[in-house]
Amino acid sequence: MQEKIEQLKTLLHEIHDLGAASAVLEWDQQVNMPRGAAEDRGEQSATLSQIVHIKSTSDELGKLLDELNEHAQTLDKDSDDARLIKVARRHFDKNTKVTGKWVSAFAKETAVAQSVWEEARATDNFELFRPHLEKLVDLRKEYAEFFKPYDHVYDPLLDDFEPGMKTAEVQQIFSDLKKEQVELIQELSQQPQVDNSFLFLEYDGDGQLEFGKKVITDFGYDWNHGRQDISVHPFTTSFGLNDVRITTKIVPDFLSPCLFGTFHECGHALYEQGIAKKYNRTPLADGASMAIHESQSRMWENLIGRSKPFWKRYYKDLQAIFPNQLGNIDLETFYKGINKVEPSLIRIEADEATYNLHIMLRLEMEIGLMEGSINARDAAEVWKEKFKAYLGIVPPDNKDGVLQDVHWSSGLFGYFPTYALGNLVSSQLWEKMLEDNPAASQQVEAGDFSKILGWYREHVHQFGAKFEPQELVMKITGQKINAAPFMRYLKSKFGEVYGL
Amino acid sequence: MQEKIEQLKTLLHEIHDLGAASAVLEWDQQVNMPRGAAEDRGEQSATLSQIVHIKSTSDELGKLLDELNEHAQTLDKDSDDARLIKVARRHFDKNTKVTGKWVSAFAKETAVAQSVWEEARATDNFELFRPHLEKLVDLRKEYAEFFKPYDHVYDPLLDDFEPGMKTAEVQQIFSDLKKEQVELIQELSQQPQVDNSFLFLEYDGDGQLEFGKKVITDFGYDWNHGRQDISVHPFTTSFGLNDVRITTKIVPDFLSPCLFGTFHECGHALYEQGIAKKYNRTPLADGASMAIHESQSRMWENLIGRSKPFWKRYYKDLQAIFPNQLGNIDLETFYKGINKVEPSLIRIEADEATYNLHIMLRLEMEIGLMEGSINARDAAEVWKEKFKAYLGIVPPDNKDGVLQDVHWSSGLFGYFPTYALGNLVSSQLWEKMLEDNPAASQQVEAGDFSKILGWYREHVHQFGAKFEPQELVMKITGQKINAAPFMRYLKSKFGEVYGL
Repeated sequence: MQEKIEQLKTLLHEIHDLGAASAVLEWDQQVNMPRGAAEDRGEQSATLSQIVHIKSTSDELGKLLDELNEHAQTLDKDSDDARLIKVARRHFDKNTKVTGKWVSAFAKETAVAQSVWEEARATDNFELFRPHLEKLVDLRKEYAEFFKPYDHVYDPLLDDFEPGMKTAEVQQIFSDLKKEQVELIQELSQQPQVDNSFLFLEYDGDGQLEFGKKVITDFGYDWNHGRQDISVHPFTTSFGLNDVRITTKIVPDFLSPCLFGTFHECGHALYEQGIAKKYNRTPLADGASMAIHESQSRMWENLIGRSKPFWKRYYKDLQAIFPNQLGNIDLETFYKGINKVEPSLIRIEADEATYNLHIMLRLEMEIGLMEGSINARDAAEVWKEKFKAYLGIVPPDNKDGVLQDVHWSSGLFGYFPTYALGNLVSSQLWEKMLEDNPAASQQVEAGDFSKILGWYREHVHQFGAKFEPQELVMKITGQKINAAPFMRYLKSKFGEVYGL
Repeated sequence: MQEKIEQLKTLLHEIHDLGAASAVLEWDQQVNMPRGAAEDRGEQSATLSQIVHIKSTSDELGKLLDELNEHAQTLDKDSDDARLIKVARRHFDKNTKVTGKWVSAFAKETAVAQSVWEEARATDNFELFRPHLEKLVDLRKEYAEFFKPYDHVYDPLLDDFEPGMKTAEVQQIFSDLKKEQVELIQELSQQPQVDNSFLFLEYDGDGQLEFGKKVITDFGYDWNHGRQDISVHPFTTSFGLNDVRITTKIVPDFLSPCLFGTFHECGHALYEQGIAKKYNRTPLADGASMAIHESQSRMWENLIGRSKPFWKRYYKDLQAIFPNQLGNIDLETFYKGINKVEPSLIRIEADEATYNLHIMLRLEMEIGLMEGSINARDAAEVWKEKFKAYLGIVPPDNKDGVLQDVHWSSGLFGYFPTYALGNLVSSQLWEKMLEDNPAASQQVEAGDFSKILGWYREHVHQFGAKFEPQELVMKITGQKINAAPFMRYLKSKFGEVYGL
């Protein structure tokens, strides 16, 4: 049987290497590629994807997994081999259940829908995008059918990003969260507003980069196995566990995007850099789920990067780089400014306290669209109604409303909830980490992150994709994913910032 | 039949896309990759190479080429389709004649030999490298056997870089060249030496880059379909015809490498950027041969980039960037300095007049090794003898002698002559270009390269790999590759520089 496992690994290595090559092409496209090369690069990526698809659904792989199925029963179910077989099996089943006809139709529709969406957003014209949204919802309904029987039509979509998680679970979590979070924001909105105008001065790009690099070096980012570049949309990507790269963007008259974006992407990267090397070139060399991944990025960005102890240590360094902009802004003012809460139209610009509301709105809409209780043709109106209910403001147009995110035009349904779940998990894990390492705040204030990173390495990172997200959170905290720790965090932090 | 040609193109596109992906991985490795990622990248590249090999030797491709063979006879032999079939056939035959066993043995031996060579060179220890050189020569002899019958055992090696060219032709060309070139150098060595010490001052890297970019933009390098980066060993690479990238290196206390290296790589890139787009993603989207490629790089580097008219236009720009270093150096002194002739140990640092002698030595040795008249175990001694005969000096050690180049340790035999052939072809084409465009010098002096580039686009670049090198040179100049124009050029130029 060991021989068969080695055969499986050989096939998985090949698929992984080709995926890594695709990722290099994609990274290059975002970071370096000259504009005139777009069409050729599209062909190269398509050729690679096709070969990956063929190899991921090959009879050879299927037969091997069948043969290993019985063997897996004899193994400790938490052994690496048993888990590898299980995860490989899940991927294989997903890849083979979906017909080639659907994959092709989906690829064609998303290619068109994305360019139409770009125009629709630029011209604030929902009607232009509407037929494509309808088509994509239909395609996603067809997709769900491949995975019958299911408890809920949204389950197969969610499962692509949160293995094993059910729609009912997410709905329960969010319903717990919704009431408390809306109440908190209403309370905060009655307090005097804080000032953050100093964040919108001219900040030299090199200085922004320099500070971010210094901080993430202290966090523990391994430059021998990664690098940072500039791209329009910041992201993290890995080509195997030994090459985990991040990008950032510089907004010359707004300090936050480069700063907190760098911390955020570093959080993703620290996760990947921390996965046990023995999993390299296999499907276990990945995060447990998008939510677990996001818990790591949000932790370094927010729980550490927007905390008082952090800025007690680093604010003087930032002031030294930007004396003209920040020399007269004291630590307290700066700290409050970067933690300003204000309902706003755009998700990616939302503060920690309002962010999840943007997500809940989207989740409700996605579930409604999939169930059929919301018709895609009415999406723009439904968006406005829900936005008013959640955030108390009505978007004046569709470009900053239903058209603001790229996800739906790319066919991504089921992805949004992972952002909010990531916030919740970040606080759950953090509370547990504090139990084991009660001096964490003092360590942050001293710029020493080794114990904190060490804890996440031990309890989260090393396992890669070996465990499902609920399993992993249960294993670490003794509880499933839930909203209580996050709400405790929000109330404590913003109660202090706003003097409740 | 048109359908079969389309099928062929589909297969060739796929192979080409995978080759482009490999090239992106290689470029990234040289330019960006963090050090700790080397092993993973090796696996990724190996996986891609293996798939390319399988697809390049598939029964499907072979059958299609067989079916198209007859069809090709009915086509105009110079039509694109006929030539595409011919070139694809040549590649297929080459790839299938060589056994998998040999490919694997060769890959293993070169991987080891290269790291041993690095150590051997660093420690000046030829004995360390000797057994690997012997092994590689044996492997190359085996390789030649796959292509029997041949006129000369060196023919199959040469053919990999100069399709259709024979060893006897190259020997004839070089024997014409040798006597005249050695005589010229002897004459020059009796003249007072020129000064080039000002090239070895401190030159700011950004300034070096800025000047190079300005010049190659004027040459016509298309930044919308390319970019320039820094790497240890400068090179040009293309991922399809719409993404042709160059690299350069900066030596802070030597002006020449970045300057002339940038012109050189730009010459390679202008060739690739000028290939007719209709050939994209096929084997015709390539240079006609390494020598033709080198003729283009050497033309922009030397015939233009080290010419008086060029510096009449650009020297003031360079002086403006480096006033401290060059403010007191007049144009004439600068021009002579960059054209200093001096026999030296290292090929890549050799001037225009001595460069070919380094190549002839290597060609004689390679032929001797393949014929068996030179034994690999004696290579270090033979090198010293021949070096004395060609260049009048004896290398004091082996690291700057037989161990100086990476080629043999990589298993590259047959490559060296293309450097010298490229020099010859550059002058042959230039003479012809001058007939058609007699005002070329004035254009260069005005910084207007459009007519010159246009001529090469029309007569050389657009055809890509459609014609074999001798065919192409014959088609353009009415003569085969020969040494006369190059010797006229050398005598005229260096006669003037050295006041003969």
